[in-house]
Amino acid sequence: MTALPEQRSNLVARSGPPVGIVCGGGSVPFAVADGALGDRRIVLFALRGAADPKRVAAYPHHWIRSFELGRLCRLARQEGCRELVFIGLLLRPKLRELRTDLLTWRLLPRLIRLFRGGDAHLLEGVIKIFEEQGFTVVGSHELAPSILTPPGAAGRNLPNEHNLADISRGLAVLRAMGPYDIGQAVVVSRNQVLALEAAEGTDAMLARVAELRRIGRIPSSGGVLIKAPKPQQDLRIDLPTIGPKTVEGALRAKLDGIAAVASASILAEPARVAEMADRDDLFVVGVNPDGSVR
Amino acid sequence: MTALPEQRSNLVARSGPPVGIVCGGGSVPFAVADGALGDRRIVLFALRGAADPKRVAAYPHHWIRSFELGRLCRLARQEGCRELVFIGLLLRPKLRELRTDLLTWRLLPRLIRLFRGGDAHLLEGVIKIFEEQGFTVVGSHELAPSILTPPGAAGRNLPNEHNLADISRGLAVLRAMGPYDIGQAVVVSRNQVLALEAAEGTDAMLARVAELRRIGRIPSSGGVLIKAPKPQQDLRIDLPTIGPKTVEGALRAKLDGIAAVASASILAEPARVAEMADRDDLFVVGVNPDGSVR
Repeated sequence: MTALPEQRSNLVARSGPPVGIVCGGGSVPFAVADGALGDRRIVLFALRGAADPKRVAAYPHHWIRSFELGRLCRLARQEGCRELVFIGLLLRPKLRELRTDLLTWRLLPRLIRLFRGGDAHLLEGVIKIFEEQGFTVVGSHELAPSILTPPGAAGRNLPNEHNLADISRGLAVLRAMGPYDIGQAVVVSRNQVLALEAAEGTDAMLARVAELRRIGRIPSSGGVLIKAPKPQQDLRIDLPTIGPKTVEGALRAKLDGIAAVASASILAEPARVAEMADRDDLFVVGVNPDGSVR
Repeated sequence: MTALPEQRSNLVARSGPPVGIVCGGGSVPFAVADGALGDRRIVLFALRGAADPKRVAAYPHHWIRSFELGRLCRLARQEGCRELVFIGLLLRPKLRELRTDLLTWRLLPRLIRLFRGGDAHLLEGVIKIFEEQGFTVVGSHELAPSILTPPGAAGRNLPNEHNLADISRGLAVLRAMGPYDIGQAVVVSRNQVLALEAAEGTDAMLARVAELRRIGRIPSSGGVLIKAPKPQQDLRIDLPTIGPKTVEGALRAKLDGIAAVASASILAEPARVAEMADRDDLFVVGVNPDGSVR
């Protein structure tokens, strides 16, 4: 199995009306805005409580709350946006933070059904809602291909023979879990799966591995974090992402390195990631879907 | 797929020489000793630091340390034991707690290879070592069939329609993970896999679900803990186990209930589990391998 996950791709033209970026936390939304193809103007629709106000201020923007679907559509239309990118969103907000409007209320039974299932199920349903409202949902990597993880090492370290075997096993585990829409990350060390990501997310999973080291439940170091999209996943939302925070987590978990499927994942702040990896003697590598490098 | 996992079964005769129980923590070793078939005398080989000294004292016993393989074999032979049961062991001890003897040193390269892989891989290797030393390794459930989870509810609560769907999905996930020798437990709520067990164990996984509730990352309640042996697992060691501690964890994780595959898992302290389940309105149920009840 060496094929990339099925891509429902929407080509982004190099010129046209502004593109809306509906964004939550992290640095990736700004990398996407800065890396937008051609001369496409960007408008941020920034999620209150998640996006960084200081960085948002540097771009044309509106603040939105979770599930103000009607307001988001109205603002995007006013700005002339026909294409929307969704990135860095907290997809399952706390109920007390929910702000609903008329459209949300109308869609509520459908949204509740979407929440009953994994993230991919939810994301695909959300895309469909915006498409019904007349928008085209494009992937952040389609607007800004420069954010994709390139093949090969970021930095000077490379996985050794044991690491490569663990990467291949990790990718096989993620493929096997694929039909169940569970997670995009796994930690494997010398053939043993130490941790599998589900609802907790990658950072919490890495913290767990660090804790298992501390209590002596697993060997004191070694292993690889492997990230890959789910086999049937729509790559337009929720591409697996690695960045400086992932490197910090991997370091605390005493891993040898990080592998992500090249061209099917996001590498945030690549220069900083390479610098951190070199300083702390970790590898960070973009691999083929079968785990091979280059 | 409704077959039980392949069983490499060793029938235990109702009379004969004493049976050795090599035991770690928890109450199950004592349930096995008390429930031993016929008039089989029991000798405990209790793991120091893990087994409860007060309870161990009630049986003929010797204290051992992790990986004193030669001493364990010698003591078992002196006691006339030809059959050994392994139960409740901390399989991956901290290195600083390791005590090795001559046999362990001789087997070290092989033990190191066994540690490189999942628990089932390690367990099967350990069984093989004791068989080479002339012992027959029998399952705790073969010596004491009364410890197996019976089909149906322990207590008065039963899973509802949503719970049954989640149980069936959880069993499918565990089957899919089977070839990778990862874990025996998963939490599923309304079709979403909230947590998968790997090296952390069931109690830590349930604590994680409780924490995800607290921070509002997942809905505030609902879902089922599902436990099943790995598809190819040798049932003579490491049967999935539920007991009072599991019920407490499930309660803190605000689950609706617990399901374990009947006749392929251990239900420790069934009366107390039923009482706790009834008091806290949880279900605890032994299911068929396809998730159906009875």
